Amino acid sequence: MGFVVGVIGAGQLARMMIGPAVELGVELRVFAESDGAPAGLAATQVGDYTDIAEVLRFADGVDAVTFDHEHVPQRVLRALEDAGVAVRPGSAALRFAQDKLAMRRLVAELGLPQPDWAAVRSAEQLDAFLDGHGGHAVVKTPVGGYDGHGVRFVGSSQEVEDWLGLVADSGDAALLVEETVAFSRELSQLSARRPSGEFACWELAESVQRGGICVEVCVPASGAGDRLRSECVRIARTIAEHIGVVGVLAVELFETPDGRVLINELAMRPHNTGHWTMDGALTGQFEQHVRAVLDLPLGAPGLRGSAAAMVNVLGGPEQAELAGSVAAALAADPDAKLHWYGKEHRAGRKVGHVTVVLGRGRGEEAVARARAVARVLRTDAPGAEDPSASA
Amino acid sequence: MGFVVGVIGAGQLARMMIGPAVELGVELRVFAESDGAPAGLAATQVGDYTDIAEVLRFADGVDAVTFDHEHVPQRVLRALEDAGVAVRPGSAALRFAQDKLAMRRLVAELGLPQPDWAAVRSAEQLDAFLDGHGGHAVVKTPVGGYDGHGVRFVGSSQEVEDWLGLVADSGDAALLVEETVAFSRELSQLSARRPSGEFACWELAESVQRGGICVEVCVPASGAGDRLRSECVRIARTIAEHIGVVGVLAVELFETPDGRVLINELAMRPHNTGHWTMDGALTGQFEQHVRAVLDLPLGAPGLRGSAAAMVNVLGGPEQAELAGSVAAALAADPDAKLHWYGKEHRAGRKVGHVTVVLGRGRGEEAVARARAVARVLRTDAPGAEDPSASA
Repeated sequence: MGFVVGVIGAGQLARMMIGPAVELGVELRVFAESDGAPAGLAATQVGDYTDIAEVLRFADGVDAVTFDHEHVPQRVLRALEDAGVAVRPGSAALRFAQDKLAMRRLVAELGLPQPDWAAVRSAEQLDAFLDGHGGHAVVKTPVGGYDGHGVRFVGSSQEVEDWLGLVADSGDAALLVEETVAFSRELSQLSARRPSGEFACWELAESVQRGGICVEVCVPASGAGDRLRSECVRIARTIAEHIGVVGVLAVELFETPDGRVLINELAMRPHNTGHWTMDGALTGQFEQHVRAVLDLPLGAPGLRGSAAAMVNVLGGPEQAELAGSVAAALAADPDAKLHWYGKEHRAGRKVGHVTVVLGRGRGEEAVARARAVARVLRTDAPGAEDPSASA
Repeated sequence: MGFVVGVIGAGQLARMMIGPAVELGVELRVFAESDGAPAGLAATQVGDYTDIAEVLRFADGVDAVTFDHEHVPQRVLRALEDAGVAVRPGSAALRFAQDKLAMRRLVAELGLPQPDWAAVRSAEQLDAFLDGHGGHAVVKTPVGGYDGHGVRFVGSSQEVEDWLGLVADSGDAALLVEETVAFSRELSQLSARRPSGEFACWELAESVQRGGICVEVCVPASGAGDRLRSECVRIARTIAEHIGVVGVLAVELFETPDGRVLINELAMRPHNTGHWTMDGALTGQFEQHVRAVLDLPLGAPGLRGSAAAMVNVLGGPEQAELAGSVAAALAADPDAKLHWYGKEHRAGRKVGHVTVVLGRGRGEEAVARARAVARVLRTDAPGAEDPSASA
């Protein structure tokens, strides 16, 4: 047999590995939580990813285990490693994507730029942080948050009374508090590393988030000079090499009005801010992730053409309107690429994305065109949440 | 539910529809002849595609039925159509890809350029054709040939005595005889059409065949001017519109030293000479085929970058050497894309292909680079059969 990769989790990230795996001749086996998941086509087991025995059974016969999400507990990861399974990224690296406090400590230790932060266990500690930072801050639950869940912008400790209560009861747990950064924009540095050490970075991307959810991405980040781009590559490489990341690493950054970058979040898997690479880079992030976790030589990450954009589809059409909406979206721009996740409609849910890649032309044009296609499909209320209404 | 496409046949063409179908949100259901086929991941039924009851059962609940190969008998296609199934391409069009004599008659009727040809039923008729064409010709069995099977270059009717014997016994059957064309090169015009009439052509490709098997393709065809390109588009469009092709249509052509083109073969499905589109065109042929058979708006077919090449891998490594060979091939060129069909090794068998797409640079360079990667994987004896040894 050829190569076999096991993916824990059957969401859209696992789904988007299917095509590249098929083309590389890699057998993808997906561990799903339930039937009918986006990556259901490649599901070989349905079960509970916190159950060590089930996950060990899944890992039998695979060359590497990787992930659709970061929620697999450390005890499960370590049990796999103890059984000799190639877990990629490994538990020691993945910890920094699972635990935001551990990530903040790591970044501090590496001397890389980040917002002011603290671990707080009480209202007094949080209020002290607020007093020192203009009376506002962002509080995060260190583990388990995603897409804005587990994140609150606060002006007083009373606004996270519930979370503080949980922390107070639980021994050594703490909340992460960070200064609110008056950023000029958000950036994302996507990279990949394989066990033998090869490292590759994609172009620096500019992303727009609303309510904690990525709504659009533009490449290249407009006006990003060599200094900024090499600083972002340095940050990604320092983290990847120091903790031995394997697979795709996304480093989300704030750019400040005075031109500095500060690390916001880390993810160790293909990432929403990297979906543009599927059509806009010589090697897409899903292909690169599969190559990396198998320790195969990495593909060239270069931008194809002059600019690329990705716009998420949130909400999406009801099933009854799906066929007509998809036809209208495809008709709207023959150059656009639609990526559909096979999910049921739900307000605010990411159900797909649209990319536009230009041979000639600027990122703004690519974004405008991708927005126009996404707008045909998106059902969430426009207005405040409408990226096309923003500057 | 969303869109469902049923594909009869589970070879590499069905396999390469999987990725694009997943991204479009289309459920692909494959009717396989046996377990373990290249498109096995999407197989929902294993059976005999000549059995009307089995195929009707497969077609239940699909929006359209299409094909990995052209071997489904007309009586099965018509039974599907009589049952109200959207068969795409339909039986009336597909007949011209299944029966080379019907194709020759069609092309003659349409007044499109082709080699001299005749339907022959006896040694006398064949010898008369040979006498009129310099003593050599190519004889083809009208139905069932592929990759050089069912094709013989002859100088005497004795060389096809076996075929003539079969024809003599079978009533109205005949062999196709064609003049051997002293072509300067072979070209392929790939296009797609959907039921509502939209038609899209890819760039004209230049292909190299050895022993009846496509070994490499280069785009754009070097030195092809507007006159040649528009003539090839005209030929493809005339055929597609006249007989109502749905899906991808490949028209293989000979170019003569005096600059004419003559139709060699037709195929109504994604085609080996179109594999370059997977990476080299804005819309790949497998995505376009899925869109077309669902009557969804077609994608833009434009060439990405300046040139693209595709080189087939014939033979390929034995399973025991597969991992090392694939790693070496990927290391050989980080820009190259490997497409692997998941087949067991067999001499001369197409087991995968390599593409190289250049942002800047000429087709010759893309071909040379794709050859270099394919050479790492190919196990068939080099020398006479080695495309890299040719001019």
